[in-house]
Amino acid sequence: MAAFDRGAVSALLDRLVAEGRAAAASGRPADYIPALAAADPLAVGAALCLGSGEILESGESRRRFTIQSVSKVLALAYVLETRGEEAVFSRVGKEPTGDPFNSIIRLETSDTRKPYNPLINAGAIVVSGLEPGSSGAERCAGLAAFVREAIGGRTPAIDEEVYRSESGTASRNRAIAWFLDNLGLLGGGVDEVLDAYFRQCAILLDATELARVGALFALDGLVPGSGCRLVSVRHARIVKGLMITCGLYDGSGEFCSAAGLPAKSGVGGGILASALGRMGIGAYGPALDERGNSLAGIRILTRLSEELGLFEF
Amino acid sequence: MAAFDRGAVSALLDRLVAEGRAAAASGRPADYIPALAAADPLAVGAALCLGSGEILESGESRRRFTIQSVSKVLALAYVLETRGEEAVFSRVGKEPTGDPFNSIIRLETSDTRKPYNPLINAGAIVVSGLEPGSSGAERCAGLAAFVREAIGGRTPAIDEEVYRSESGTASRNRAIAWFLDNLGLLGGGVDEVLDAYFRQCAILLDATELARVGALFALDGLVPGSGCRLVSVRHARIVKGLMITCGLYDGSGEFCSAAGLPAKSGVGGGILASALGRMGIGAYGPALDERGNSLAGIRILTRLSEELGLFEF
Amino acid sequence: MAAFDRGAVSALLDRLVAEGRAAAASGRPADYIPALAAADPLAVGAALCLGSGEILESGESRRRFTIQSVSKVLALAYVLETRGEEAVFSRVGKEPTGDPFNSIIRLETSDTRKPYNPLINAGAIVVSGLEPGSSGAERCAGLAAFVREAIGGRTPAIDEEVYRSESGTASRNRAIAWFLDNLGLLGGGVDEVLDAYFRQCAILLDATELARVGALFALDGLVPGSGCRLVSVRHARIVKGLMITCGLYDGSGEFCSAAGLPAKSGVGGGILASALGRMGIGAYGPALDERGNSLAGIRILTRLSEELGLFEF
Amino acid sequence: MAAFDRGAVSALLDRLVAEGRAAAASGRPADYIPALAAADPLAVGAALCLGSGEILESGESRRRFTIQSVSKVLALAYVLETRGEEAVFSRVGKEPTGDPFNSIIRLETSDTRKPYNPLINAGAIVVSGLEPGSSGAERCAGLAAFVREAIGGRTPAIDEEVYRSESGTASRNRAIAWFLDNLGLLGGGVDEVLDAYFRQCAILLDATELARVGALFALDGLVPGSGCRLVSVRHARIVKGLMITCGLYDGSGEFCSAAGLPAKSGVGGGILASALGRMGIGAYGPALDERGNSLAGIRILTRLSEELGLFEF
Repeated sequence: MAAFDRGAVSALLDRLVAEGRAAAASGRPADYIPALAAADPLAVGAALCLGSGEILESGESRRRFTIQSVSKVLALAYVLETRGEEAVFSRVGKEPTGDPFNSIIRLETSDTRKPYNPLINAGAIVVSGLEPGSSGAERCAGLAAFVREAIGGRTPAIDEEVYRSESGTASRNRAIAWFLDNLGLLGGGVDEVLDAYFRQCAILLDATELARVGALFALDGLVPGSGCRLVSVRHARIVKGLMITCGLYDGSGEFCSAAGLPAKSGVGGGILASALGRMGIGAYGPALDERGNSLAGIRILTRLSEELGLFEF
Repeated sequence: MAAFDRGAVSALLDRLVAEGRAAAASGRPADYIPALAAADPLAVGAALCLGSGEILESGESRRRFTIQSVSKVLALAYVLETRGEEAVFSRVGKEPTGDPFNSIIRLETSDTRKPYNPLINAGAIVVSGLEPGSSGAERCAGLAAFVREAIGGRTPAIDEEVYRSESGTASRNRAIAWFLDNLGLLGGGVDEVLDAYFRQCAILLDATELARVGALFALDGLVPGSGCRLVSVRHARIVKGLMITCGLYDGSGEFCSAAGLPAKSGVGGGILASALGRMGIGAYGPALDERGNSLAGIRILTRLSEELGLFEF
Repeated sequence: MAAFDRGAVSALLDRLVAEGRAAAASGRPADYIPALAAADPLAVGAALCLGSGEILESGESRRRFTIQSVSKVLALAYVLETRGEEAVFSRVGKEPTGDPFNSIIRLETSDTRKPYNPLINAGAIVVSGLEPGSSGAERCAGLAAFVREAIGGRTPAIDEEVYRSESGTASRNRAIAWFLDNLGLLGGGVDEVLDAYFRQCAILLDATELARVGALFALDGLVPGSGCRLVSVRHARIVKGLMITCGLYDGSGEFCSAAGLPAKSGVGGGILASALGRMGIGAYGPALDERGNSLAGIRILTRLSEELGLFEF
Repeated sequence: MAAFDRGAVSALLDRLVAEGRAAAASGRPADYIPALAAADPLAVGAALCLGSGEILESGESRRRFTIQSVSKVLALAYVLETRGEEAVFSRVGKEPTGDPFNSIIRLETSDTRKPYNPLINAGAIVVSGLEPGSSGAERCAGLAAFVREAIGGRTPAIDEEVYRSESGTASRNRAIAWFLDNLGLLGGGVDEVLDAYFRQCAILLDATELARVGALFALDGLVPGSGCRLVSVRHARIVKGLMITCGLYDGSGEFCSAAGLPAKSGVGGGILASALGRMGIGAYGPALDERGNSLAGIRILTRLSEELGLFEF
C-alpha cells in the first residue's frame, strides 16, 4: 500500500458500513436472551486504529455492545501475561476443532482430556479459571483493568442485564464447567469461575475500542499511541495464531481464506481484526449468520482486506 | 426344575459364595470415594427370596452396603407407578447404548436429545427429577417408603458418609445434570434433583433385601409373601426389559448370554436378579471387575442360573 | 398356558395377521434397491413351529422373501459351530450399541477396536469372514447347507436380483469391510467376504421356515421334529442373548420390554422369534417402521406374546 | 528485513540444517510401509526459492522423497484451476477439524456430510476424484504436468515401490473412499480415484522443488522466475488459508502460533512453506514427530521464521 490517504479510507469505510448494513438483512441478532435479541439489526459501525492510536470510524462506531466471545482473546492475553504459557497450555490446547463452540464431546473422547483451544467455551472457561482473584467479580475486575490499559483510559463497564441473563440461563456452560472440574482443569470453584466468565462476556465496548485492541495485536503487544508494551511479542503471536485458526467459530477457515487476517467474533455482533504493523479493525453489526458471526462485520472486514490489501499470507 | 430342595439349594449357595469369594481376588472395591474403597473385598454374601417371601441365604447376606446404581431400577419402578409411562419415556428412551454409564456425548449428538435409557446416569438423573417432592430429602423419602414396601417393614437408611462424599465429588454427574437442564429434561432444580440422586445411591440394603426386590420383579410386581401389588405387570416388565439389555453397564450383553436373567448391579458391590415366577436373588461382593460389576456377584448369579436352570430364554 | 388348543391358536394367528396387515399401513417397504421396494406391503403372514416340528400358519406364510439381517443370526450360529467361540469373540463383542446398524464410528473410537456385536453390519461382516471357504459362493454354500439342516430338507435359494443389486450399491458396507480389513479383523479378502455377506442377505425363506429356525433356538439347538442337535446349548444361548439385546436395530430395547422374546428382524420384512421350550415364530410383512423393522411382524409378535403368555422374564 | 544477504542466509541455512538434524534424533521415519521406514533419519536438507527463482540450499536438498500429503495442496491448486471453486467446495469444506487425518467419523456424523477440508485424507480423495481423466494414471499424469510447470522443466517421477506398497496396504483409505462413494461425493470409480490418490502421494520431489512450489504460492500463483501465472490469486489464497489452518495435521495450530506461515507437511518427511512476496521454503527430514510432521522440517521452518522475520500476522 502506498501512502495512507485518510480521506480515501474514510470514504471507503462509509461505503463498507453501508454494504455491511445491506448484508445484515439476511440475518438476525442472537435471541437466546432478550437483552441481545432487542439489538437493532441495522445498527452497523466500523473503526480503524492506526499504530499511532489515530482512529478512523464510520456509522455506529460509538454504540456499545457486549463483547461476548471477543472477551476470549482479551482474557487469554491477560492470563498469558499474568500466569504464563505453561499454566495455560498445560490445561488447554492450541488446535482448531471442527466441533461447535459449546461442544462437550471432546472432553470425554480426546486422549489429552483438555479443551482443544482457548476460543471455544470449554477452553475459555479454563482461561477464566486462571484469572487471578477468587470471586468472579474480582477475577473480572483484573481483566477489566487490563482492557482499560489496552484501550487507553476508560475502565469498561459490564452490561448488568446481559450478565444476569446469561448467568441465569447458561445450563450448557455450567455442564461444561462441571466437566472441566471433573477433569481437574478448573483453577477455582465452578460457580466463581463461571461468574467471572459470564461477567467478561458482558463487558461493553464499542467498535473504536475493538479497533484499539486489534491495533494492540497488530503492534505485537504495544499499546497504540503510547507504545507501552502490554503483551509480549510471543504471547501476541499465540493469540493471533489462535484467532486465525479458530476465531470465527465454524466459519474460521472460510474467513481465513477470504480475508487473510486474525480476527475474533462475538454473538453480541462485534468482531475485531488485526493487520500486522498496519492497523486494528473493529466492526459491529448484531445481525448474525447461522454460525454466530456478524454478517455486517464479516462483510466489512473481508472487503477492507481486499481494498486495502491486508491479506497477510 | 423339580421340587425345590431347600437343603440342596442352601448347600449350593454356600458353595457359590465360596466360589464368589475366590473370584473376588482379581478385582478391588470402587475407590472414587474413601467410604467405598474401605469395603472388605472378601465380604461376600448371597440370598434367594422365593415367591412366598421365604429367604435362603449364605455368607455376608446381612451386611449392608450402599446400593448405588441398583437404586436406578427402584427409582424407575417408583416413578413409573407415581408418574406414569408417558412422563418417563417422553424424557428418556428404552434403548441400550454402547457408551460408558457416565457418558455425556449422546446428549449432544443423538437426534432425540434424550438419554438412551434410565439405567445410565443421565437417564437415572432424569428419573430422579420425576420423583414427587421438591427437596432432595423429600424426593428420596418417597422412594425410601416405596422400597420399604418392596422389602417389607423396614425403611432403609442412607449412608450419610457416602451420600456426603458423592455429593461433594460428583462433578461429572453435575455436568450431566446441567446438560439435562439445558435440554429441558429435568423436572426440578439441578441441585435438588442431584441431591435426590446422591441420596438414593447411598440407600443401605443387604443381600436378602436385594433378593426381596428381585422377587418382587419375579412376581411381576407382587410383594413376595404378602401378594400385594406394588408395581403393575406392565411396569415390572419394562423394568426387567431394561435390566436385561442394560443392567450391567458394559457387561450387559455378556451377562445376558451367560446367565439369561434380568439383573442390575451397583458399584457398591450389590447385584439383584429376577427369575420369573421362581425367585429373586441378591448377591454382594465389593470387589469389582473393570466394568464396575461385582466379581463375586456375577460369578454367583451365573453359576446359580446354570445349577438351578434359571436361564430364561 | 394350559393345554395347547390348535384351533384357538390358529384362529388367533388369523386375527393377528389381520391386525398386522392393518398396522402395515403406516410404513412402506425398504426402497434402497428396486427389488425390495416392489414388495406388496399388504402381503402379511405368520407361522408357529412347535417343538414337534408341527407348523401352524396364516396369511402369506409361504411367500418367500430375502431374509437380509435375519441371516446374521444364522451365520453366527453356523460360525460358532464351525469355528468356535474364541474365533468369533476375539474379533467381535457381545454388547449392544446405540449406534445405527451401519455405523462405522466405533471402529475408530472404541478402545477394543472391534465391532460391538455380530448383529450390526460391521460385526456380521466379521462373521462372514469366518465362514469356511474362500470364494463368496463357497462360503455362502456352507451357510445354506446349515440352513437346510435347520429348516429340514430344502436348500434355500438366493434371490439373484437382490444379491446383484445389493452387491452393486453397497458402498457403505464396502467402507465398513475395508475398515475391518484395516483393523485386521477380516478372515479373508474384502471382496470375497462381502460377496458372501451379500449372498447370505439374499437367501430366500418364508415365514414357516423362519418359524423352524426360531424353534431350533427355542429347543436350545435341537432341530424341531428330528431332535438332532445342530447347535450347542451354549451357542444357542449366546445367539439368543444377542437377539434379545440387539435383534431389532434401534428398537431392540422397546421390543424387549414389549414382547419379552429374543427376535431378529430383516429389512426384507421377516422377523423370527423364539419362545424357550414352546415354539419358534416367523412373521412376514415388508412394510417397515422408521427403524427398519416389519410393522406387521412386530405387531404380530407382541400380540402373540401377550395372548399366549410368552413373555419370558 | 533489510537487504537480503545471500551469504548470511546461506550460513543460516547451514546452521538450521544442523539444528534440524539434531532435532531428528527424537523421532523416526514413517514405518507403515517398508519403503518409507528405510529412509535415513539423518538425511536433512532445506532450500529457499526467491521470487526470482533463485535457490539457496543446504544439506540433502537434492535428495528426492515421496511428497505424500504435500501432494494435497498441489492437487487442490490443480483442481481449483481446472474444475473451479464450486466443483470443489460443493463436495468438501474449508474448515479445520480436530480429528486425525485419516478419520472417517465426521462423514457419518456431520450435518453437511462432506469432508471438513481438502487436506485430510477424505477431502483429498474427493479432490483426486475431480482431477480430469478417467484412469488413475491419466488423472495423475495431469497433476504431474501441473507440477512440472510449477517447478519448471522436469516432469516429476513416481516412486513405483511406494506407490505399489501404499496401494496394497491402504485399507483405511479404501474405507474412506467407499464411504465417500456412499455419500455421492466421488467424481469417478473408487478404484481409479484411489489409484490417482496413491500415485500422487508417491510423486518424487526434493527440497529445492518444494521451495519452488512454496514460492509459487508466495507469489500468489506466479511461477518464480518466469512470472507466468499458473494459479489465480484467489485460488492461491484459498490454498494458503487451508495450509495455515490445517497444513500440519494435529500440529497445525501449534505451528501457526510458532512460525506464522502457511505450510504443508507429508509423512515422507517433506514440508513446504510460503512467505508472501518473500520466498518459498522446502525442508526435508524423514524422522517424524508423533503427529506425523518432520521434526527437522518443523525446526528449520520455525527458526527460519524467527531469524528472517517471516511471521506473517
